[in-house]
Amino acid sequence: MRLDIEIMMELQKIIKENRLGLLFQQGSFGIEKESQRVHQDGSVVTSAHPKAFGNRSFHPYIQTDFAESQLELITPPNKTLEDTMRWLQTIHEVVLRTLPDDEFVFPMSMPAGLPPEKEIKVAQLDNPEDVAYREHLVQSYGAYKQMVSGIHYNFQLSPELINALFNAQSQYQSKVEFQNAVYLKLAKNFLRYQWVLIYLFSATPTVDANYFKEGSPLQPNQYVRSLRSSQYGYVNAPEIIVSFDCIPEYVKTLEHWVNSGKLIAEKEFYSNVRLRGAKRAREFLQTGIQYLEFRLFDLNPFEQYGMALNDAKFVHYFILCMLWIDEIADQAGVEEGKARLAEVAFEDPRQQTKYASEGERLLSAMIAMLNEIGADESAVKIVKEKLAQFAQPELTLCARLVAEIQSAGGYQALGAKLAQQYKTHAFERFYALSAFDNMELSTQALMFDVIQKGLSMEILDENDQFLRLQFGDHFEYVKNGNMTSHDSYISPLIMENKVVTKKVLQKAGFNVPQSKEFTSVEQAVANYPLFEGKAVVIKPKSTNFGLGITIFQQGVTNREDFAKAIEIAFREDKEVMVEDYLVGTEYRFFVLGDETLAVLLRVPANVVGDGKSTVAELVAAKNAHPLRGDGSRTPLKKIALGEIEQLQLKEQGLTVDSIPAEGQLVQLRANSNISTGGDSIDMTDEMHPSYKALAVGITKAMGAAVCGVDLIIPDLKKPAENNLSSWGVIEANFNPMMMMHIFPYSGKSRRLTHNVLKMLFPEMQ
Amino acid sequence: MRLDIEIMMELQKIIKENRLGLLFQQGSFGIEKESQRVHQDGSVVTSAHPKAFGNRSFHPYIQTDFAESQLELITPPNKTLEDTMRWLQTIHEVVLRTLPDDEFVFPMSMPAGLPPEKEIKVAQLDNPEDVAYREHLVQSYGAYKQMVSGIHYNFQLSPELINALFNAQSQYQSKVEFQNAVYLKLAKNFLRYQWVLIYLFSATPTVDANYFKEGSPLQPNQYVRSLRSSQYGYVNAPEIIVSFDCIPEYVKTLEHWVNSGKLIAEKEFYSNVRLRGAKRAREFLQTGIQYLEFRLFDLNPFEQYGMALNDAKFVHYFILCMLWIDEIADQAGVEEGKARLAEVAFEDPRQQTKYASEGERLLSAMIAMLNEIGADESAVKIVKEKLAQFAQPELTLCARLVAEIQSAGGYQALGAKLAQQYKTHAFERFYALSAFDNMELSTQALMFDVIQKGLSMEILDENDQFLRLQFGDHFEYVKNGNMTSHDSYISPLIMENKVVTKKVLQKAGFNVPQSKEFTSVEQAVANYPLFEGKAVVIKPKSTNFGLGITIFQQGVTNREDFAKAIEIAFREDKEVMVEDYLVGTEYRFFVLGDETLAVLLRVPANVVGDGKSTVAELVAAKNAHPLRGDGSRTPLKKIALGEIEQLQLKEQGLTVDSIPAEGQLVQLRANSNISTGGDSIDMTDEMHPSYKALAVGITKAMGAAVCGVDLIIPDLKKPAENNLSSWGVIEANFNPMMMMHIFPYSGKSRRLTHNVLKMLFPEMQ
Repeated sequence: MRLDIEIMMELQKIIKENRLGLLFQQGSFGIEKESQRVHQDGSVVTSAHPKAFGNRSFHPYIQTDFAESQLELITPPNKTLEDTMRWLQTIHEVVLRTLPDDEFVFPMSMPAGLPPEKEIKVAQLDNPEDVAYREHLVQSYGAYKQMVSGIHYNFQLSPELINALFNAQSQYQSKVEFQNAVYLKLAKNFLRYQWVLIYLFSATPTVDANYFKEGSPLQPNQYVRSLRSSQYGYVNAPEIIVSFDCIPEYVKTLEHWVNSGKLIAEKEFYSNVRLRGAKRAREFLQTGIQYLEFRLFDLNPFEQYGMALNDAKFVHYFILCMLWIDEIADQAGVEEGKARLAEVAFEDPRQQTKYASEGERLLSAMIAMLNEIGADESAVKIVKEKLAQFAQPELTLCARLVAEIQSAGGYQALGAKLAQQYKTHAFERFYALSAFDNMELSTQALMFDVIQKGLSMEILDENDQFLRLQFGDHFEYVKNGNMTSHDSYISPLIMENKVVTKKVLQKAGFNVPQSKEFTSVEQAVANYPLFEGKAVVIKPKSTNFGLGITIFQQGVTNREDFAKAIEIAFREDKEVMVEDYLVGTEYRFFVLGDETLAVLLRVPANVVGDGKSTVAELVAAKNAHPLRGDGSRTPLKKIALGEIEQLQLKEQGLTVDSIPAEGQLVQLRANSNISTGGDSIDMTDEMHPSYKALAVGITKAMGAAVCGVDLIIPDLKKPAENNLSSWGVIEANFNPMMMMHIFPYSGKSRRLTHNVLKMLFPEMQ
Repeated sequence: MRLDIEIMMELQKIIKENRLGLLFQQGSFGIEKESQRVHQDGSVVTSAHPKAFGNRSFHPYIQTDFAESQLELITPPNKTLEDTMRWLQTIHEVVLRTLPDDEFVFPMSMPAGLPPEKEIKVAQLDNPEDVAYREHLVQSYGAYKQMVSGIHYNFQLSPELINALFNAQSQYQSKVEFQNAVYLKLAKNFLRYQWVLIYLFSATPTVDANYFKEGSPLQPNQYVRSLRSSQYGYVNAPEIIVSFDCIPEYVKTLEHWVNSGKLIAEKEFYSNVRLRGAKRAREFLQTGIQYLEFRLFDLNPFEQYGMALNDAKFVHYFILCMLWIDEIADQAGVEEGKARLAEVAFEDPRQQTKYASEGERLLSAMIAMLNEIGADESAVKIVKEKLAQFAQPELTLCARLVAEIQSAGGYQALGAKLAQQYKTHAFERFYALSAFDNMELSTQALMFDVIQKGLSMEILDENDQFLRLQFGDHFEYVKNGNMTSHDSYISPLIMENKVVTKKVLQKAGFNVPQSKEFTSVEQAVANYPLFEGKAVVIKPKSTNFGLGITIFQQGVTNREDFAKAIEIAFREDKEVMVEDYLVGTEYRFFVLGDETLAVLLRVPANVVGDGKSTVAELVAAKNAHPLRGDGSRTPLKKIALGEIEQLQLKEQGLTVDSIPAEGQLVQLRANSNISTGGDSIDMTDEMHPSYKALAVGITKAMGAAVCGVDLIIPDLKKPAENNLSSWGVIEANFNPMMMMHIFPYSGKSRRLTHNVLKMLFPEMQ
């Protein structure tokens, strides 16, 4: 045996001797999942790929595969399968919430209710070559065969592992050749034993009769393990044999089939293992195989996203075992593996497989490997569960699927039912991304838009809500949903400092209420002439429950009244403030660039009587609103019935058990914060444009690109005037909240995250 | 009597009845001070106005008056005299530290050692009209007369006071007319009683004989109170009489003198009170007098900045009294006042004045007023002190000055001595602005440059180091010396987050040391292959006194050694870090825009032996360095001799009483922080340019305009290579410190604040 082959046989030994068990378990994982868009009845749609998903010429996450109706959802590579599944779930949530109301995602690999072949439109990609290739496939295989969906599982070994293995041997001088040999061992053994994965994970037992041009090969009521992986699936002609012996041979045989015209391109070679990391196979000679793509997985209809995390983990261990075992399948072995695959695929899923003992032997070897490399107990448990399925075929996914198809009255009916369930589920918390619910809702909303529109996204720090977005060569960072490079450093510093904010706004000519602080009654009263005739509020610097506050709403006209109010305030604190009092309602203006995008009114927690229900019942009913919850994982907060609320009720002569009259407004809080159960009401369209222009001006004076401006306005319909009785600015906030505008309690939703992206990437269409 | 005049007589009553005492005391104050630049001997220089003071066509603080040698220092208006004096002091410090080594600021009003008249160059202003006007003055009065310096005191009543007074009467319908009447009453009474201020504050008892073209009017050894305010001073021809009766009369008479050619322009009318707030007197009819300028003050040679705060306060009370008293001088009264001024000015300062009883009566009225308006006790005290000087003329400023002149052997000699003292004093804490020493040193350095170069500056918040700078219409905010609009909001957010910083820098291709954290020995050791061959430091996540740290400086090559180090680290903490270890020295790169402006080496606190002194003596000597102090009010910190330093000495076998050999380096600290007595050494010119370029690149990757980059470099002379053994970046800091570069312990000073201003205002020449 050649020394280089010998060393590949001994990888297990090297790993053990060099204690590389942990590195061996590391790697990168990516999943691509195809699915058909379907009608409510599970039949394939003929509508175009939704425009809402942006542009397929660059979309990294949401593409079309063969047909216009066939979604291809792509996760970025991740260091853990957990993260990969989070992405897969998230992309699904974005897709399901974006599809038209009457479209669903079919959870099975074999399509159902196919339209006439000529109505199937190949994916309308921008690149004419891509469209031509698909038209060629239609000619070669027919459109129907191309409508099958599956999961492609991408796996890269840790580059550090390959380094460590390379350093631990001396037979290979070339790192590239060594790396190619490692991946080829893995690929060949995988092809040899791939039938095991079909036995365990296949889920295409049947299909509509009309799927086959020349009639179904299945007898009535016959079920198989995997039509998709059988000779009746979407496979190359049997003569297309490509050598996996070594890269030069692989390149030679693959190029032969392309040059001879049997394949239109290298990518038409549909091996269940594809070598990845180069545009053309020949490049592997120089750069080496970077990762492998495993293509034989049927969609698991019982999983909302097509594959269970534990199954994905099992696949990982299976792949590792292909590298671990002290054997390397030769070309004959590969062909034998392909033959067994075809056999097993056509077995009855409810029966034991012919090759059960080989499967049990292999899974036992996997368990031994897991113990040797110090894997978690949970890994061994996952493999043991699968091991049991060789003795109990009724536990396999496909056998369980057959039972469900029978009880649902057909696979299309079952698929339609599940598709509806999964879509409903995706809307349960429509304002959140379930897999990233540890992050802030506003960042989740932005991530939703990013994934929908197809910017590349990297989460730099989940706890810190730090994202890196990229489009072409242009990248931007975003923190907390709207903190970006578009705001200048000095803006938040100005806004953080109330004194400076007031000075800046006043200098720029805006109506800013003034306040003065005093440390003695005499000093305050001596300043009375400053306030005469003005509406002012007099209050202790630290207020407790509003004690000591006097408001001269119509203007203070009398020194004695003023002095009295000052004295009252001084009973509560050593410092007293006299502030301009603004009469009116507070509105929050959300400004981005040159535009006020949203205006919001915040109303204190309240219920409205119906003449029948108690306050407690009214509160419970209002709290059932889907937006209400704890206020951090939901856009709005449930109204509490604590001490403060009960005190508020008492002031209105009510208790929680009172039954307010129909239409009676019951206040449960004095303050209007959303965080204490307040209502958010969009008023963007109601607000007079002059105030919106003012908010933009205030934002510009702050030097800010994004700003939340709080104005007090007595009459939102009247044009703004240049005095404090028309309006006044009380605060300018950086990093303003967005959720209350995106999901207001009532009024129109304003998708501000969308505007943030437009600001950052104006070039993106 | 006309009703409107009557009401002006009754202002006192209105103020009392409406209790406006506090408002009455409020106002705005600005000071303009002229001074000659002189040689060490006190003689006037003939050199040009220093270029370092920027451009006189816009400089708000440092101008030239009549002659090129005559500085005019101008404070902005302030709400308190305390703030005005802070500005005056600050402008002086800037001027004194900027002048050439052999130039001084003469502290007396009358010039000494005048060069021949033809060598006196009028101020070379950009505007040819301004130069022509000065040439005209030379023709009319001679150059020498124009070389006199004084202080102009600008005062504005609180606009709220004028409002309140206006509202409290009904005789005037027009606010503008009322305001003009108020200021005119003040002006007329001031002119009537101005001699009192001459008696108390004059300081021009003598002058060189050659100052007078036709010989000195003074007898030998004759001293007067104020040559400057006498008929021999710089005054209009006696026939130039302008009516202060009312604004229409004022306009009419003033325009008459200009139209008749007796005055070249309105500004040639040198009244001791000037009406201000308009370019031409006629405008007062529409817009009203805005404030008054009082021009009769001689420089007080005993005050470093020409006027004492308490004297400025006295002037304020005096001015208020001119409004308070129930009389209004008519034109005859004004002329009488001017005549008394001339008389008093020419009295012997050591003698009682002829008008002492009028003076005493007036100051008693001032005291009464102060009591009525509720002024501080301290105000009354100030006036009482001056009151006593009518009985004791030897206490007046001028009498004291005569004594000093006599003992110094002449006023030029005294002036020269004081000028030298004041310059020396201005250098005592040359890195600070004494009046703003509550602020950060770096902001003080920036303010210094701002005042030197002539940007307009407003201090928005002293505690928060928040400045607003303006040049023409262009304004910028600066916080903490270098936080500006030029940095983007996201940059500091990236730099604040170490994880994100590392990701960003790594992605951009910079050498970033990596670290991994482990929670068990097994887990860490299983990852050994990741570190094999690399220089690493193994340490507990929280280190105490360096316990549990192992450094593999040459690379870890043995799993057992690695495991041992891990175990040791786990004895100190539940989490252990393995970090890439960088061999080399840490340098701080200060980057602004496209340039590394400074590179600094920080060396731990140390002394070098001389073979004679003890460690304690060496430390004391080093601590005497002018830059060393508490470290917040000084650029460097004194070396302590506390527990940590003594422990450090002990490790070297030393105590504070040991006498190190000559040239022996004694370490007093292990850490290199400036805040623990470390030395800062400028290495900008020594550093290989490749590292400076890297620091710029790192700054750009952070999206920052200003950044402090910390690099570890083993050999600063060798070009940078793309690996961690050549260099590594360990930190990127926003708002980097500047003082350690501006005032390093050794090496060249880098005036970074200057670059900050250039960045903000590239248009300023």
